[in-house]
Amino acid sequence: MVEPVASRRRESPWPLLSMDESLAIVARESPVLETLTCSTWGSMIGHIIAEDVHAAEPHPAFPASIKDGYAVITSDGGGIRHVVGVTTAGHTGGSIELQPSTCARVSTGSFVPLGADAVVQVEDTKLVEQKDGEEISIEITIPPTLGQDIRPIGSDIAQGELVIPKGCLIGSSEIGILASVGRTSVSVIRKPKIGVLSTGNEVVDDAPINELPFGKVRDSNRPELLALFASLGYEALNCGIATDELADTKNKLMAALQSCDVIVSSGGVSMGEKDLLKYVLEKELNFTIHFGRVMMKPGKPTTFATGMYEGRKKLVFALPGNPVSAWVTAHIYVVPSIRRMSGHSMPDATILRVKLTSDVKKLDPRPEYMRAWLSSPPAGSDIPLAVMTGSNQMSSRLTSTRGANLLLKIPPKSANVTSLKTGDVVDAMVIGAL
Amino acid sequence: MVEPVASRRRESPWPLLSMDESLAIVARESPVLETLTCSTWGSMIGHIIAEDVHAAEPHPAFPASIKDGYAVITSDGGGIRHVVGVTTAGHTGGSIELQPSTCARVSTGSFVPLGADAVVQVEDTKLVEQKDGEEISIEITIPPTLGQDIRPIGSDIAQGELVIPKGCLIGSSEIGILASVGRTSVSVIRKPKIGVLSTGNEVVDDAPINELPFGKVRDSNRPELLALFASLGYEALNCGIATDELADTKNKLMAALQSCDVIVSSGGVSMGEKDLLKYVLEKELNFTIHFGRVMMKPGKPTTFATGMYEGRKKLVFALPGNPVSAWVTAHIYVVPSIRRMSGHSMPDATILRVKLTSDVKKLDPRPEYMRAWLSSPPAGSDIPLAVMTGSNQMSSRLTSTRGANLLLKIPPKSANVTSLKTGDVVDAMVIGAL
Repeated sequence: MVEPVASRRRESPWPLLSMDESLAIVARESPVLETLTCSTWGSMIGHIIAEDVHAAEPHPAFPASIKDGYAVITSDGGGIRHVVGVTTAGHTGGSIELQPSTCARVSTGSFVPLGADAVVQVEDTKLVEQKDGEEISIEITIPPTLGQDIRPIGSDIAQGELVIPKGCLIGSSEIGILASVGRTSVSVIRKPKIGVLSTGNEVVDDAPINELPFGKVRDSNRPELLALFASLGYEALNCGIATDELADTKNKLMAALQSCDVIVSSGGVSMGEKDLLKYVLEKELNFTIHFGRVMMKPGKPTTFATGMYEGRKKLVFALPGNPVSAWVTAHIYVVPSIRRMSGHSMPDATILRVKLTSDVKKLDPRPEYMRAWLSSPPAGSDIPLAVMTGSNQMSSRLTSTRGANLLLKIPPKSANVTSLKTGDVVDAMVIGAL
Repeated sequence: MVEPVASRRRESPWPLLSMDESLAIVARESPVLETLTCSTWGSMIGHIIAEDVHAAEPHPAFPASIKDGYAVITSDGGGIRHVVGVTTAGHTGGSIELQPSTCARVSTGSFVPLGADAVVQVEDTKLVEQKDGEEISIEITIPPTLGQDIRPIGSDIAQGELVIPKGCLIGSSEIGILASVGRTSVSVIRKPKIGVLSTGNEVVDDAPINELPFGKVRDSNRPELLALFASLGYEALNCGIATDELADTKNKLMAALQSCDVIVSSGGVSMGEKDLLKYVLEKELNFTIHFGRVMMKPGKPTTFATGMYEGRKKLVFALPGNPVSAWVTAHIYVVPSIRRMSGHSMPDATILRVKLTSDVKKLDPRPEYMRAWLSSPPAGSDIPLAVMTGSNQMSSRLTSTRGANLLLKIPPKSANVTSLKTGDVVDAMVIGAL
């Protein structure tokens, strides 16, 4: 049973963890998922490859011309040559063997005939004699050097070469590499499926403009978090809104756990009498709550739990209900965790050093994460600028996240430092496309 | 008719444009597309919004508590209070008006009753008297200040406030803002549909390992470019391979033009006798070829054409056939163009200043784009590092693109500078997730 309101605790029972402690716990509790086989290029994108891919064949498989021009014998030097053959790209007909004082017309990517040891680009030749539109002889105006403009067999990719190491993220260039070595199926690490749940009787869906019932608020966290995970390439499932009733909270949570690896909820984790989530996780589902408070702004009530459900380990991130807090803590805790589960060897956000373009008048006792967007370094500087996305960075003011691709790591107040000034340089997490 | 090989030009007729000239032409010729209406949040992501979105209602619509605690009257100061009511979040029942010396229990997000002018968090209270688990009176241990822990009406979003300006990219935080103001349908700018075509008799699809016919090469450009555009959120259509026959080149190009706004082809644009693309574009389709050569490495034969097809302006990027050249020029020319067509106000890649971690022994006469990945600034430095993705950056060596999220802008050789050293700082285009 949930205890009566009068006997509720008036202080949070949860120790206030540091950022480092809380992040280390999430990292430790985020398992790399199993592998699966992808057999279409489209399905591979965004996955971490789970095998070393070696090239079975050399590339190119034949000596190939780098230019449109003529395959020649270097020792012939410059001067006039008979054009004895043609090997256009992809032409697979009878191969010729080049004799001294002759040349063969080649084009970019076509094979260089036996006997030839250089290619002279067409720009360095003149037509000498022709018949019916065909070249009879040409003049080479610049004597070739040995091997010039030929890609030898295996020069791009040697036979057996490791072309994509295990652990590499598959993006467009990796698709190109796989295609060029003939691999249309590879083993990858499965990405977690993420269930997004909102909580609270005050939260409603789909209230048209001017029809929001008194005391209610439209759910923005769920659409936003679903969009965040989807835009990062994860399958994200809408798990609805759990009301402030024990049974509904438990049922919604169980439905989410059934089909997802990771549950991301918002709300229901501060000191409210109706904040049932921790209770249900710990007492009803036998999950371990690893932390329930973190020394950070925004995001102090961020809660993280794990447990077994139907034989599989599940992660639950119970984020604060404030829209900005939910968005910020999703970036700080959930994104690195799901990247780790997906096999990323460097799951944390890249850190850049950025120059503030406005003052931070009063540092908080907690480390603070401010929303900003990056602007390229101005002329004469090597350090990019951070433009705050709103002067009011209150945790309920969602417009302060608009356009943000950085989370600035504003240090906590110390004995020596109580404010930051325009031009000060701070660490910034890159959280979006630059 | 295509001219006979003997009478072909031996010098490219195309002037060698500078990067600035060629980029200005592409920018000038890339039209912003028309608007369309998106009515699901999922479909909005990645679009530029085409209208100013104002909030029709204030948010919150009622004075809301920031904490779990008690709504009080500040002038009462500290001390004991009767708990006369409860307003949990989302509770819409009868409103109460607070009288002096009383308080009402509130939770995060719940409305603050009439008469109250501050909220005291539960941590700053003690239970004094209770009956059957209900609170009768509590003690306030820290006297409240006026307005403390209350979000006044409209404090997050004022009624009529511009919450998303026209031209903003819709990402997860913008979805959250739209959801919170009740907008489920907005006007956005259409994104171009991109057709990807390969050219050349030497290019084949789907050749299994050890079954590549002599003289042939697997197509890596098309899978790679399709993956690139898809991963950037564009609809990309596989338009197949055009053989080195005039009719096939024309037919494949026309089919692509019919269903796409932008065609991206690779190959068929150097000095080869079978390089038919420019001929078909100019002579058969009456397109304007704006440039056919650029002073850059890789990517010198990059070709750009526009024309009207069935009443609509179409853009054709005929990229070089070398895999690295195609990938690099797609980032440099095509990506900013399609971003501009999609309405981005800053379509060009963000530039960072990065420190080289290896020497560039010999600068090219052309500006060179080297592939690298970004590493966060080491301790004590504000400048990130660029790690070259391969020591061999030859344009056919596709593995040099692996993992790259930067294109380094290596300056051309000059009278004074002929090489760069480890530790030198250069501009880098950000071309992937950091």
